[in-house]
Amino acid sequence: MRWRSALLRYLARHDESKLMTRSPPPLRSDFKLFRSLQTRWADNDMYGHMNNVVHYQLFDTAINQWLIEEGLLDPLGGALVGLVVETGCRYHAEAMFPDRITAGVSVTRLGGSSVTYAIGLFRNDEETAFADGSFVHVYVERSSRRPVQLTDNWRRKLAEITQ
Amino acid sequence: MRWRSALLRYLARHDESKLMTRSPPPLRSDFKLFRSLQTRWADNDMYGHMNNVVHYQLFDTAINQWLIEEGLLDPLGGALVGLVVETGCRYHAEAMFPDRITAGVSVTRLGGSSVTYAIGLFRNDEETAFADGSFVHVYVERSSRRPVQLTDNWRRKLAEITQ
Amino acid sequence: MRWRSALLRYLARHDESKLMTRSPPPLRSDFKLFRSLQTRWADNDMYGHMNNVVHYQLFDTAINQWLIEEGLLDPLGGALVGLVVETGCRYHAEAMFPDRITAGVSVTRLGGSSVTYAIGLFRNDEETAFADGSFVHVYVERSSRRPVQLTDNWRRKLAEITQ
Amino acid sequence: MRWRSALLRYLARHDESKLMTRSPPPLRSDFKLFRSLQTRWADNDMYGHMNNVVHYQLFDTAINQWLIEEGLLDPLGGALVGLVVETGCRYHAEAMFPDRITAGVSVTRLGGSSVTYAIGLFRNDEETAFADGSFVHVYVERSSRRPVQLTDNWRRKLAEITQ
Repeated sequence: MRWRSALLRYLARHDESKLMTRSPPPLRSDFKLFRSLQTRWADNDMYGHMNNVVHYQLFDTAINQWLIEEGLLDPLGGALVGLVVETGCRYHAEAMFPDRITAGVSVTRLGGSSVTYAIGLFRNDEETAFADGSFVHVYVERSSRRPVQLTDNWRRKLAEITQ
Repeated sequence: MRWRSALLRYLARHDESKLMTRSPPPLRSDFKLFRSLQTRWADNDMYGHMNNVVHYQLFDTAINQWLIEEGLLDPLGGALVGLVVETGCRYHAEAMFPDRITAGVSVTRLGGSSVTYAIGLFRNDEETAFADGSFVHVYVERSSRRPVQLTDNWRRKLAEITQ
Repeated sequence: MRWRSALLRYLARHDESKLMTRSPPPLRSDFKLFRSLQTRWADNDMYGHMNNVVHYQLFDTAINQWLIEEGLLDPLGGALVGLVVETGCRYHAEAMFPDRITAGVSVTRLGGSSVTYAIGLFRNDEETAFADGSFVHVYVERSSRRPVQLTDNWRRKLAEITQ
Repeated sequence: MRWRSALLRYLARHDESKLMTRSPPPLRSDFKLFRSLQTRWADNDMYGHMNNVVHYQLFDTAINQWLIEEGLLDPLGGALVGLVVETGCRYHAEAMFPDRITAGVSVTRLGGSSVTYAIGLFRNDEETAFADGSFVHVYVERSSRRPVQLTDNWRRKLAEITQ
């Protein structure tokens, strides 16, 4: 796979990026929930690979689709909305249209009103993530934007995908 | 401004997000380089505000445009390309089309082949960032994707925008 | 379905849009090739429905993915690339994330170097398209951008999806 | 400019695309209203030029921004929304990030509830459009999605940008 090995060796040796500890890319077995996601022609940028921004569209899609399917979120009509207060992503290798992507998702922290999700993105049938990241939602009342306490129903469902 | 105060109080009190220390949003004076950026109709998602993914499109645009203008990067023809190996963003308040955005940029870490940029996004004439993030590029040789040592010319120019 | 009936009645009565004859939306049976496509969170704009631009991302994806699978197009390495010279879309009803989309595709005109594709977009299990459009590719030599004559292999495969 | 001449000669000679008459690209003097628009890094696709979908993001942005500035449209709170019922674009030449774009806009048809806009996109200081298209809005009541009659205020303002 393009740029995985040379670049990972470089990053491991020099640890030039200090934002997150550069631990190895996660595996599929590190996640609880899986969603199949498609790539689009326009996802590839002028370097011929999936632009770094697209990964976040996939995070948003995987997490919100699960919340909608579980009946936890109704984005157009519900009283509660999820505001994104923090996101991050590490890129380990390239993916590109027309690859099939699998997103692995787990909950890594559950606060009173907030949830931190970890996401790994896997290319085609690979076991090692080409990218992984985090996504922090604070759930608020739609009009006032005030944080709300997550209900028992939410906590039960989030517990099922907690790492 | 919508959701800044209630949400920031909540985040300060509970510190529910542990990825980065939730320090206060930066000010314009925390950055060295400024670019005016436009919003687009499609930037607003179904919550009526700029989708969390768009912020990263703005990071990419501000940094690469500066590199191109300085003659450091030639994305289609040059021997060197910048691979994004890590990005992150904290969201402090909403912005939305048709707001004007100013991106503030500084270099916060300069490695042998990598550069870490800090970015703040400012809405219209506000002095406090509605979002801020980081963006780590590793510069590699185009075809082999092997990291290259940054030249003196690069280092001189990056020094001018180092915090 | 939202806005289909009132709006279609209005358009049929007044024929206010003259660009294309406002014939009724096509059915699945009007197409030869079908691709399942996913929606993304960010596809919905501030009106809560799929932004009018996303339809064109789906056109691009359905057609190019078929060309790649058939071995006709190799977007990164091949000698031939497809330049889009004209596109159009009529919107009959709303679709929205997290709907599943099916794209129906047919070839409606085959020139020496150009192909005109018709596309219908179908929401979930609906039989009537919520949008339909056209997409004209001219196939050119990658570096000179000069039109090339389509080979017999191309013509054979395009014939299979010609309406 | 890349692909303008060879491709335009080809299209003029063969007229392979029948959707719209392939008249020559418009000039700046063919439009009444002008907006400066920026390109973004992610606008360039794997062919190194602005993806054909981005042109529609620019149409949407130029027209809606004018409507908002004129006080005609309040996308989040107003009683009236503009539904896009038809769009089309012809591509005459390539543009690419970091080009500056100017959008020229005119009204070409004013119905009871609908407006057809013509748009030309101009690259940097060029006088000839690299792309031009049309965009048809039907204005409807927000919740019922029923077409509304455009008021005298709307008609006065649209008259100012009518070709």
